[in-house]
Amino acid sequence: MAKVYNFSAGPAVLPHAVLAEAQSEMLDWHGSGMCVMEMSHRGKEFMEIIHDAEHDLRELMQIPKNYKVLFLQGGASLQFAMLPLNLLGDKKSIDVVNTGHWSKLAIKEAKRYANVNVVASSEDRNFTYVPAEETWQRDPDAAYLHYTSNETIGGLQFPFIPSSANGVPLVCDMSSDFLSREVDVSQFGLIYAGAQKNIGPSGLTVVIVREDLLGKALPSTPTMLNYQVHADADSMYNTPATYPVYIAGLVFKWLKELGGIKGMAARNDEKAGLLYHAIESSNGFYYSTVDAPFRSKMNVVFRLKDESLEDTFLSEAKKNGLVQLKGHRAVGGMRASIYNAMPIEGVKALVSFMMDFARQHS
Amino acid sequence: MAKVYNFSAGPAVLPHAVLAEAQSEMLDWHGSGMCVMEMSHRGKEFMEIIHDAEHDLRELMQIPKNYKVLFLQGGASLQFAMLPLNLLGDKKSIDVVNTGHWSKLAIKEAKRYANVNVVASSEDRNFTYVPAEETWQRDPDAAYLHYTSNETIGGLQFPFIPSSANGVPLVCDMSSDFLSREVDVSQFGLIYAGAQKNIGPSGLTVVIVREDLLGKALPSTPTMLNYQVHADADSMYNTPATYPVYIAGLVFKWLKELGGIKGMAARNDEKAGLLYHAIESSNGFYYSTVDAPFRSKMNVVFRLKDESLEDTFLSEAKKNGLVQLKGHRAVGGMRASIYNAMPIEGVKALVSFMMDFARQHS
Repeated sequence: MAKVYNFSAGPAVLPHAVLAEAQSEMLDWHGSGMCVMEMSHRGKEFMEIIHDAEHDLRELMQIPKNYKVLFLQGGASLQFAMLPLNLLGDKKSIDVVNTGHWSKLAIKEAKRYANVNVVASSEDRNFTYVPAEETWQRDPDAAYLHYTSNETIGGLQFPFIPSSANGVPLVCDMSSDFLSREVDVSQFGLIYAGAQKNIGPSGLTVVIVREDLLGKALPSTPTMLNYQVHADADSMYNTPATYPVYIAGLVFKWLKELGGIKGMAARNDEKAGLLYHAIESSNGFYYSTVDAPFRSKMNVVFRLKDESLEDTFLSEAKKNGLVQLKGHRAVGGMRASIYNAMPIEGVKALVSFMMDFARQHS
Repeated sequence: MAKVYNFSAGPAVLPHAVLAEAQSEMLDWHGSGMCVMEMSHRGKEFMEIIHDAEHDLRELMQIPKNYKVLFLQGGASLQFAMLPLNLLGDKKSIDVVNTGHWSKLAIKEAKRYANVNVVASSEDRNFTYVPAEETWQRDPDAAYLHYTSNETIGGLQFPFIPSSANGVPLVCDMSSDFLSREVDVSQFGLIYAGAQKNIGPSGLTVVIVREDLLGKALPSTPTMLNYQVHADADSMYNTPATYPVYIAGLVFKWLKELGGIKGMAARNDEKAGLLYHAIESSNGFYYSTVDAPFRSKMNVVFRLKDESLEDTFLSEAKKNGLVQLKGHRAVGGMRASIYNAMPIEGVKALVSFMMDFARQHS
């Protein structure tokens, strides 16, 4: 087996302990004689699995009782349509903050169903900062305000939670920093996250929604796109993505064992700190493309001063077992995604390689 | 480990060889150092996996070149909305055959977007037969005709493929008998199937659609519900359910090794034959609820003449390692789902148990 550190932006590295447990249970989950994939979703075994997953997630995030937790399918991309279809109600428009690739996709889809008011955008400087909240041009009558707490491609992360001004519910795409730092759920109307970064396998989407926002779906909303339908059925309106739910549940247990989100946030601070320090102390050999206060602790995007060396960097890194470091084509350069499951040893190995590479090529 | 035969209607038993392979590759797929769940969906490893899966499915079903194969999410339930949204075009109505629970759900959702003409229904006799095709009241101007080739809950299966009269495309929910018998794909406009019976894990839906039916989505169709979007992107518009696609690919390879669909159909005939013979030769102790020509080879639904013995039957069966035999609450009694992955030994064990049980309680 090749030993690699996988810096993929998602689907991404999973905790070794989780995969080892899934491997050991593959042919027989807890003496049932069945793989989890083979279980009726309405049988007591899977009901226990999904119940435990929800329970552990609620405990980890301290989700208040007036919020529903939904295990859905379709990724964040499907949420981009579900949000306006479900939350617009009798309002006419929604507020959005535009901070990059994923914000833009959310805006594009929302425009098909609602008037979209871009309260602020950092497109003027290629999405390298988050506009100061006091400059946002908010509509007090918006159905909700949408933002992307971490832009996976740009490597930009909100260092603050926007205010829920005028009672306008806050809706957050937390796909790529979910469970990576402490968050006060009660400040949000809805939080959603595709699983394939910090939760588990792709094909699962977690939605946390305040109950009073349910029941307002537009008449044309497909049944499967109606949050209320899934909330009423405890995510069992139809067959959920059972195996991804199971893996997510193992990830939640792993997080609890490691000290919950508080413990994970400290580890993430340390990991990101090591990497950004290596970049900052390289005398300009490497540089970050994002303004300092907004640099993501999940997706560390950086370039080489000498761009002609970037391909060499990637191929040498791969030879050293450091894979999936190529940045998104929209941004270029490098991207080291260091989600919860990336061990600090992986970050140290990358830092060590970066320092060696800089020495050799300076 | 408990040795059980799992007769669940879905999610359902998977081939042991497939699970064993998945287990052995869990921590390192083909020397990549990664679990399939950890791979970027745009990396060369996963691209190979999804390409192979499509290639093998095309070979198994001899899918003509003018059909697209899509790997989607959301199950058949989401297809119930996607079908009218994508295929209605400038037509006003669709034709449907109503043969049970799943037909009815497809009809209910379609009515939200189109006029629905029920060409025939067997509800008059509790869905125990398929109405003769020559009695169907078809609309020559329908956008398509929809039917459910196998009703998982009722245990009813079409023994024929309806004609594509007047060029009206045939659309089939093949969720519970996909890949179980030979089918001439060229007779269909669209075939769809939730994976969790004969394909793989839940969370994956396979759609096979004739190219000329694409590009007609209603303007309100969410982007993620537009077949054309997924067809143009080879199912990679957003992150697909990568692990379910991988498992499906292993199932397709397993099918090929066992002689393809022709070989599997012969096995399925034998398995269903054994079970129905046991029912028929029980002197009325057991009886089938479905008219003989329409009895499903995938979901064998039966009752005991003495209904008061049914709970005892289920608990005794479970003690003998024969699990998930309880019928759906809408029908009652027993249901033995004997999909492709159910070995003939499982059916023989069930038949043996049924004969013993009948002897003891006659």
